[in-house]
Amino acid sequence: MGMWSYALAYLAAGLGAGLVTFGAGFGIGKIAAAAMDGTARQPEAGGAIRITMIIAAAMIEGIALFGVVVCFLLASIKP
Amino acid sequence: MGMWSYALAYLAAGLGAGLVTFGAGFGIGKIAAAAMDGTARQPEAGGAIRITMIIAAAMIEGIALFGVVVCFLLASIKP
Amino acid sequence: MGMWSYALAYLAAGLGAGLVTFGAGFGIGKIAAAAMDGTARQPEAGGAIRITMIIAAAMIEGIALFGVVVCFLLASIKP
Amino acid sequence: MGMWSYALAYLAAGLGAGLVTFGAGFGIGKIAAAAMDGTARQPEAGGAIRITMIIAAAMIEGIALFGVVVCFLLASIKP
Amino acid sequence: MGMWSYALAYLAAGLGAGLVTFGAGFGIGKIAAAAMDGTARQPEAGGAIRITMIIAAAMIEGIALFGVVVCFLLASIKP
Repeated sequence: MGMWSYALAYLAAGLGAGLVTFGAGFGIGKIAAAAMDGTARQPEAGGAIRITMIIAAAMIEGIALFGVVVCFLLASIKP
Repeated sequence: MGMWSYALAYLAAGLGAGLVTFGAGFGIGKIAAAAMDGTARQPEAGGAIRITMIIAAAMIEGIALFGVVVCFLLASIKP
Repeated sequence: MGMWSYALAYLAAGLGAGLVTFGAGFGIGKIAAAAMDGTARQPEAGGAIRITMIIAAAMIEGIALFGVVVCFLLASIKP
Repeated sequence: MGMWSYALAYLAAGLGAGLVTFGAGFGIGKIAAAAMDGTARQPEAGGAIRITMIIAAAMIEGIALFGVVVCFLLASIKP
Repeated sequence: MGMWSYALAYLAAGLGAGLVTFGAGFGIGKIAAAAMDGTARQPEAGGAIRITMIIAAAMIEGIALFGVVVCFLLASIKP
């Protein structure tokens, strides 16, 4: 019965990596879509908008990287 | 039967990391999208909007980092 | 009973790869659609929009590549 | 009972390939639809839009190819 | 009990082929619909739109072909 604990760890690693990527893709996608929409509407504000976008995207990136590292940790558990 | 408790801890770590990232991505994405929309409409208010965005995003970031640390803790339990 | 742990690892690898690709496709698709929409509306801002798009898409790409590597790791576990 | 682990690997390969293709089709479809919409609205920006589209589509393509390779790996596991 | 592993392989081949075709049909359908919409709005841009459409559709086609090959592999496993 001891093996089962690793089985669920592996399952969680795969599904978790998928969920993390989906979350990051959804969030950064929404941000960047708004950034590009704004740049097209006000080209002279493009620099300020890009800096704002990078700050916000880096925050999501930090959480997502931490989340993927948790999944990586789960995937590399050795029985 | 004692092993099962670790199995569910690992499962929770993976799914939890995914859910945390999704929540943070959704929240910060919505904030930053509105920030960039506002900056494009009023470029001279860009500085004030960015500071407001960073304050709000940092709050979500704090909660999300704590949540990912909980998942990290769950993933590193040793039987 | 020991084999079961690998069974779930394989299942997670396949479903995880699918979820990761879906997340990356959703995010990068949203970004690029907005980029092309903006380029068509303001052709002279096309260069700035493309750089913004590549920065944001590369962030999602980084998370997604990490996620697929986790799935690859799960798929190549040897019993 | 050892065969079951391969059974789930095969199941994951099929469903994973389907999910990966759906994700890539959704993402590239969205991108290309926006590209063609933009080309029709601003025919003289068609060249810039096409280059932007190819960059973004190639990013999704890279993730999707990696995902299908993971599924291929799962499908070719020998018991 | 060994036969069951092939049973799931065959199940996955069928469902996977269906999902792959659905994904490719969804993506290429969206692309071609936008292409025809654009051609009707700007008939003189028809050539550029068609080239853009073929590039994007070929990318989805490549992923889908690989996915169907995975399903073919699953369907031709010999017990």
